[in-house]
Amino acid sequence: MKKVEINKKILGENEKFAFENLIFFAKQKKTCLNIISSPGSGKTTILARTINDLKGKIKIGVIEGDIQTDIDAERIRATEAPVVQINTEGSCHLSAVQINNALKKLPMDELDLILIENVGNLVCPSAFELGESGKIVVLSVAEGDDKPAKYPAIFAKSKVMLINKIDLLEGGQIDFDIERAKDDARRLNKAIEIFPISARRGDGMAQWYDWLVNQVEKSVE
Amino acid sequence: MKKVEINKKILGENEKFAFENLIFFAKQKKTCLNIISSPGSGKTTILARTINDLKGKIKIGVIEGDIQTDIDAERIRATEAPVVQINTEGSCHLSAVQINNALKKLPMDELDLILIENVGNLVCPSAFELGESGKIVVLSVAEGDDKPAKYPAIFAKSKVMLINKIDLLEGGQIDFDIERAKDDARRLNKAIEIFPISARRGDGMAQWYDWLVNQVEKSVE
Repeated sequence: MKKVEINKKILGENEKFAFENLIFFAKQKKTCLNIISSPGSGKTTILARTINDLKGKIKIGVIEGDIQTDIDAERIRATEAPVVQINTEGSCHLSAVQINNALKKLPMDELDLILIENVGNLVCPSAFELGESGKIVVLSVAEGDDKPAKYPAIFAKSKVMLINKIDLLEGGQIDFDIERAKDDARRLNKAIEIFPISARRGDGMAQWYDWLVNQVEKSVE
Repeated sequence: MKKVEINKKILGENEKFAFENLIFFAKQKKTCLNIISSPGSGKTTILARTINDLKGKIKIGVIEGDIQTDIDAERIRATEAPVVQINTEGSCHLSAVQINNALKKLPMDELDLILIENVGNLVCPSAFELGESGKIVVLSVAEGDDKPAKYPAIFAKSKVMLINKIDLLEGGQIDFDIERAKDDARRLNKAIEIFPISARRGDGMAQWYDWLVNQVEKSVE
């Protein structure tokens, strides 16, 4: 019984800050998206290309979550977007209090959209609300089309699934049935938007940008 | 303070079963390897090929850990190896008590080697000992060469790193510097054995099999 109580307390603490962050974004009329995937699905490449391609349209700030290193923050800094690095020092997900602190370090008045790159982990981050406007799940075709069925929670909770690295399908060395992945994700989540992309080469990014711009426009209405 | 005490208690429970499993493997003179990686690095493909290629040399049993589904166990069953599926129902790693129960369902007298496929997660499984003889970390080249630096714990603790899907490097669409990944892993773990492989095509598997056969021979001495 004690264990359950303590777990509740921890979740309660996270939920308190998540709610505070949610209210903050609503008052400031900012959109905040929590980007979740396995390690190496291409989150940072997606962010860097999105920031560069939307320059002049949307001003984006980034919160980078990593267990160790600031390799990803360095890649974002190259785009000149404001970025705050959080090192979780072993923890497998970002928490709402970490986001609460990071938000104070971003030049919020200059930004339309805050993108949070969570720790690379398809499981744990889905259980911790950060106060975000929505979750984005990224699945690389190299990971296999069975991942929505095998790791359902994050696919059930996300507004968008980006199927990344579709350029790799042309080599014929990867078996990935895009329709199977789509069907399995929609079985969990009827409303999920799905964009097959190659962040490296640019395929499909226009649809993702349209969705992003639409989200930002809706939040300032 | 209370939180710390409770965490210790949970770890203590896991360690108790991990120790029991460890003694069991030692007494039975069996080798048990705990295979850990991100989702979609190719663990199941490695297992299936290894079982098939080592038929007649080593008898292998498998414990499959997944959050949901028995997709992976089905793939192992096709090799005719004995397999036990564990569904963690949301939990991000296998625990020693789950392994303790699964071992009772395997025909232990017929087996030389037990391979545990952990939940796809590069973070959490590294913190939970199962009583295994050693950990194997799998990194697919599609995940990027920065993963040992960014997710150090599992690379520091593993006996072997399998760098999988090296056939994908031939397309020229993936930047993965094998030497960087090796150097970063060895900086964390001087003794780690590293085998670049393609489980799909067969490249490099002979070295991995030699290492496996050697482990099994050592455990029955």
